[in-house]
Amino acid sequence: MSEHVYLGADIGGTFIKLAIIDEKGNIIKKWQIETNKRNQGQDIPQDIYESFKVHLFNEKISFDQVYGLGMGAPGFVDLPTGMVVEAVNIGWKNFNLKKAMESFVKKPVFVLNDANLAALGENWKGAGRNVYDLIMVTLGTGVGGGIISNGQVITGSNGTGGEIGHIIVTPGEGPVCNCGRRGCIETYASATGIARLGQEALQEGKSTSLRKAAHSQHTITAKDVFEAAKKGDSISQDIIQEVTDKLGFVLANLAVALNPKKVVIGGGVANAGEQLLEPVETSFRKYSLPRTAEICSFELAELGNDAGVIGGAYLVKQKLNL
Amino acid sequence: MSEHVYLGADIGGTFIKLAIIDEKGNIIKKWQIETNKRNQGQDIPQDIYESFKVHLFNEKISFDQVYGLGMGAPGFVDLPTGMVVEAVNIGWKNFNLKKAMESFVKKPVFVLNDANLAALGENWKGAGRNVYDLIMVTLGTGVGGGIISNGQVITGSNGTGGEIGHIIVTPGEGPVCNCGRRGCIETYASATGIARLGQEALQEGKSTSLRKAAHSQHTITAKDVFEAAKKGDSISQDIIQEVTDKLGFVLANLAVALNPKKVVIGGGVANAGEQLLEPVETSFRKYSLPRTAEICSFELAELGNDAGVIGGAYLVKQKLNL
Repeated sequence: MSEHVYLGADIGGTFIKLAIIDEKGNIIKKWQIETNKRNQGQDIPQDIYESFKVHLFNEKISFDQVYGLGMGAPGFVDLPTGMVVEAVNIGWKNFNLKKAMESFVKKPVFVLNDANLAALGENWKGAGRNVYDLIMVTLGTGVGGGIISNGQVITGSNGTGGEIGHIIVTPGEGPVCNCGRRGCIETYASATGIARLGQEALQEGKSTSLRKAAHSQHTITAKDVFEAAKKGDSISQDIIQEVTDKLGFVLANLAVALNPKKVVIGGGVANAGEQLLEPVETSFRKYSLPRTAEICSFELAELGNDAGVIGGAYLVKQKLNL
Repeated sequence: MSEHVYLGADIGGTFIKLAIIDEKGNIIKKWQIETNKRNQGQDIPQDIYESFKVHLFNEKISFDQVYGLGMGAPGFVDLPTGMVVEAVNIGWKNFNLKKAMESFVKKPVFVLNDANLAALGENWKGAGRNVYDLIMVTLGTGVGGGIISNGQVITGSNGTGGEIGHIIVTPGEGPVCNCGRRGCIETYASATGIARLGQEALQEGKSTSLRKAAHSQHTITAKDVFEAAKKGDSISQDIIQEVTDKLGFVLANLAVALNPKKVVIGGGVANAGEQLLEPVETSFRKYSLPRTAEICSFELAELGNDAGVIGGAYLVKQKLNL
């Protein structure tokens, strides 16, 4: 049992992942609670505190052994104040999560955007392997991102740092993004975007084995597209080619400016493994400066759902210079 | 007279700018020497040392009062080792400038890419005003860039950090860039790029007042294009519209990931002032996330040719935690 521990919390729209983590970044205990959205989410800090209290007690760890709590929230977060500017899925608007949480735990609390926190976690204990410069992109329902430069996460001047999903790849064209604009990479490379391209191919009457998947499930998923492509469906292969080419292009342009040692790809779509990674990397090398490409390797995320809570621990470690 | 001073050196292909700078970042003395390219530039460190020796003596400053020397070189630089990987204009290849220079001055020497150094200078004493997150772009013969995040310059993992000029805006299309690829923003938004678009309009036989400038000078410059546009030449206005739209697009995509508080535009093309700045900013706001645009202001660089040497002083200050 380590002398001191970190607490990590990764707040999502449905569940909050919680963990007690030792000084080396190993998870001592992890669990989750439901996200309590009643009362505009005002009760969440107390819920988290009570849950930590019980689990720390069960693990025979006192609050005196806790260095601090690192948290992720889905939305724009102002790191210095710990203010969640807006988290639509939860109901928070200008909610000072740091302050609310510190009033319960009486220990330093730090808050980051959830995708940024996951990047920190992967950088410490996952595919990032402690490189100083890293780009992480999370392909899920949307496209999230986190950037590490000079060993520190880039949150930016009002919390949009790392919003890779809203880099525009087809200006003024393509479906409307959640942000209200057109052409964001999120509308192509997210699970939603890939599924949409599959649906569109069907609606256009193209000859594709996706039709079978659609008939049985009344809907197409990104997974269907990857599976059909693997079995030789050329329409699905074209979709994956288009999406990975666009994502590789966006990452290459970013890398020319940031010069990362690693690009880490996570999220549900990354379950496609090499079928995703290889063409993204090929596209990246096509569009990137040779010197930028030379130093940069591509990796699949390794921590899965634990990236956020481990990132929370690392955030505390960094902020307290431990 | 301040107790301690910084030395700054900004090495270009023709001249080396040198300065003695006080603790607050004010220039005590500045001058320049010719870049000695004989012997593959091996004699440059000694030239710089000898010149500093003379000017420090004249200013009655001893080497004991020198904190250190911050330098910029035109090419890829590895910050930790101070190795200039390649500086084509000078003849250096894998030249350890830091080591060579320290053997003369016996004080800490730090080396950065020249565009990165200029960004540091603008951030300290110029248009950057010490914000923590800044993008600087220098529109000259080429397009240089420097990025500050979390208060630190991004050099990246092998020195391509800030190479904004090689962000691709028209994949596979447009003229060949110095880097060998097509579609880099440098081929449009540099002085060379703008002049080329003017030449092309002439060659296509378009009706433009640029023809007068070409007749008298046998060549078109970026300045000609801006002047003709100001006087109402619609072809020149279209060129400026195209170039500023592309530059604003590149900066918006970068800003969505980096969330800067300021974008600073420098270099010779920036002499066009608001005629450049206003349309770039308009384009930026069109392509950027609203929240990213909201916090970000656009400024013209203020330090001109002094940005590099002042950045050199700031680099020493930062690295020595002064």
